Amino acid sequence: AAIMALAHQTGTSIVPQGGNTGLVGGQIPMGKDQVVVSLSRMNAIRHLDPVGNVLIVEAGAVLSTVQQVADDADRLFPLSLASEGTATIGGLIASNAGGTGVLRYGNMRQLVLGLEVVLADGRIWNRLSGLRKDNTGLDMKQLFIGTEGRHGIITAASLSLHPKPRDTQTAFVMLADPKSALALLPLAQNASGGRVTGFELIPPVAMASTARHRPVLRLPYSSGQIAAGQWFVLLELTGGDPPGPLGQTLGDLLADAMTSGVISDAIIAADLSQRQQFWAIREGLSEIQKFEGGSIKHDVSVPIDRMADFIAQASQAVEQFCPGCRPVPFGHLGDGNVHFNVSQPVDMNTEKYLTLLPEMNRLVHDIVISMGGSISAEHGIGQAKIDDLSHYLDEVSLDLMARIKTAMDPQGILNPGKVLAVDP
Amino acid sequence: AAIMALAHQTGTSIVPQGGNTGLVGGQIPMGKDQVVVSLSRMNAIRHLDPVGNVLIVEAGAVLSTVQQVADDADRLFPLSLASEGTATIGGLIASNAGGTGVLRYGNMRQLVLGLEVVLADGRIWNRLSGLRKDNTGLDMKQLFIGTEGRHGIITAASLSLHPKPRDTQTAFVMLADPKSALALLPLAQNASGGRVTGFELIPPVAMASTARHRPVLRLPYSSGQIAAGQWFVLLELTGGDPPGPLGQTLGDLLADAMTSGVISDAIIAADLSQRQQFWAIREGLSEIQKFEGGSIKHDVSVPIDRMADFIAQASQAVEQFCPGCRPVPFGHLGDGNVHFNVSQPVDMNTEKYLTLLPEMNRLVHDIVISMGGSISAEHGIGQAKIDDLSHYLDEVSLDLMARIKTAMDPQGILNPGKVLAVDP
Repeated sequence: AAIMALAHQTGTSIVPQGGNTGLVGGQIPMGKDQVVVSLSRMNAIRHLDPVGNVLIVEAGAVLSTVQQVADDADRLFPLSLASEGTATIGGLIASNAGGTGVLRYGNMRQLVLGLEVVLADGRIWNRLSGLRKDNTGLDMKQLFIGTEGRHGIITAASLSLHPKPRDTQTAFVMLADPKSALALLPLAQNASGGRVTGFELIPPVAMASTARHRPVLRLPYSSGQIAAGQWFVLLELTGGDPPGPLGQTLGDLLADAMTSGVISDAIIAADLSQRQQFWAIREGLSEIQKFEGGSIKHDVSVPIDRMADFIAQASQAVEQFCPGCRPVPFGHLGDGNVHFNVSQPVDMNTEKYLTLLPEMNRLVHDIVISMGGSISAEHGIGQAKIDDLSHYLDEVSLDLMARIKTAMDPQGILNPGKVLAVDP
Repeated sequence: AAIMALAHQTGTSIVPQGGNTGLVGGQIPMGKDQVVVSLSRMNAIRHLDPVGNVLIVEAGAVLSTVQQVADDADRLFPLSLASEGTATIGGLIASNAGGTGVLRYGNMRQLVLGLEVVLADGRIWNRLSGLRKDNTGLDMKQLFIGTEGRHGIITAASLSLHPKPRDTQTAFVMLADPKSALALLPLAQNASGGRVTGFELIPPVAMASTARHRPVLRLPYSSGQIAAGQWFVLLELTGGDPPGPLGQTLGDLLADAMTSGVISDAIIAADLSQRQQFWAIREGLSEIQKFEGGSIKHDVSVPIDRMADFIAQASQAVEQFCPGCRPVPFGHLGDGNVHFNVSQPVDMNTEKYLTLLPEMNRLVHDIVISMGGSISAEHGIGQAKIDDLSHYLDEVSLDLMARIKTAMDPQGILNPGKVLAVDP
């Protein structure tokens, strides 16, 4: 608060920074006249309420520590993502982080009950009490979630804990195409009463790539089966029952889906080690693309019922634009969010391929926007997507965001040069 | 949009109105120079996506109609409250409605995926696509949820549907006091893997009153048992399993709670008719208080782990202030929200009792605020609680809310005189 009061007085630009793991540069200063304020030493665990399922921590607390504190109290803090050993709560809130638990538990936004924030003029706004119901006008915490430190510096948060699942059942499912995957999703949701925790799409090209470069992972399907062009879904249910019923639910569901032709095959993880193996395949998908040369990435979402169309249209568009390129749409299908990465043609020069990035981005994002989707499902805007945002966001939205920014930070000293092309 | 453009041009005050069921007067005009805009004829069901579990409806759609549309598609729209046959979606979003499903499914805020809104100057802001993931800066829909039509007029919404629960198990539980109820809550959450849908507190005085005035309800406990001063909890689990497992989960949970002394007794509903009977007792609690004379009401929340303290302190405070008055704290204990109503002393004149309202409100709200709670958990601010809000809300919060209001509606023509004491 003292730093911000001084910045306010002197008109100094401040860049709040947590674990510095953001993918779009929201936490990186843009010039010598910007001062980075690191929250990393403000990392206390302030209060645990196991009855109300509330955990109050400071912004610099690392995600894996928070998961551990919850676990020690026999609770679950469900946010989970690759950088969890470094990423901090403040940054995860400022970027509204996603990850693999969104389908069941929501984004970070849904896990935040309250915040403590230092405003642009150094005043402290405190609403940490962690109430689950509070209808006294505007829900002010929403002004700070996902706005990348431009409306205030988050210093602490009340987080929502969940009961620990008592049983987890995982299957590796083979099916014809994304459309079949979209037919499987409601079947799974209904059969399990909403207990689908993971629904991750894996395209044939990524499975083939994994088979080639990661033999240690021991894929559940043979090379012959993989080469047949089938798609895959990593499906996970979690529940509170003793092992029997949920396993049976999953077995029945897959049998039904097989009978009705929605899926081609499925393998249920027999034990924890096979479950971890299944997830290792999924989690290796970003890494594995490096073996295939240059990759042009898109972190996009569309309404779930448009997802099969999107994958088909976008694949066709990039293949036409750059013959031989290999689309790798994978990830959080259950959330309507795929990482639509495109690997270079096998024989092409990587540098030359990467010069196509701006044009290919535009091509893919045009399709996303035409379907009512988002050009940044998880990663935010930061510096990297600032041009895309001003290109694609409608005028009314840009005007609203600018007005709120001005209301919150009239001098424009909080993280200038991010998200919006123009600062106050 | 045309009406708002005209209002903008002429500086006319507009009061948006849905089903007109709000409890704090947010939808009621405050003078002859205010024009009511009713959304009731703008009630189309625009789009149903059973794969993505998204339903797009216009603001004037009645809640019970929306529930029915979801049900016809084998889905659940979980918002449920007493006025559901009249209340409309627009008003329910503008007041961030709660109800009996909050513990499991969240408030209305958690059920809104996107909005279409007419702004104060007549422009239309449209983000109806219903994406579950979209990290492009400020989540603008939050500006309109719970702000009682003061930042824009909601004209349509994308709503989140849920799988229909396949099994419901309900128990009427007897226990010593609110503290025991708070011990039962985490037991139930953990044993069921988070599948507690209802956790409603019923005090002995309300059971006695129900026994006296509603014999037709056939209470699950005898008058003798009720007179012993025990408290009650209506506990409900829902799940996706065939009837067996969830019933067993509930049975096991209650047996454990009995063995460990957390509860005194419990009766599990044997069938749908007994389940409906249990809920009829809970839903009759507001009504039943009318038989006991005047009632001074408080719709409050505190952090869940402070709830037993709150009930004890607030009861003592009002009994000291008005000897013989009878506190009736009941309702959504699982959400940290009780309706702390206080019935008049048996022999007192009702009119005289009700003159104590402002002082008693202040007394109870002082305790709520000292515990970090909210003076309006469900019902909003509107006209009725405007003085309370300016009295209790901290200066920073009031300033933030006023700044955002000014940014959204610089002329102050949208629902003036509500929520905040001063308009732009």
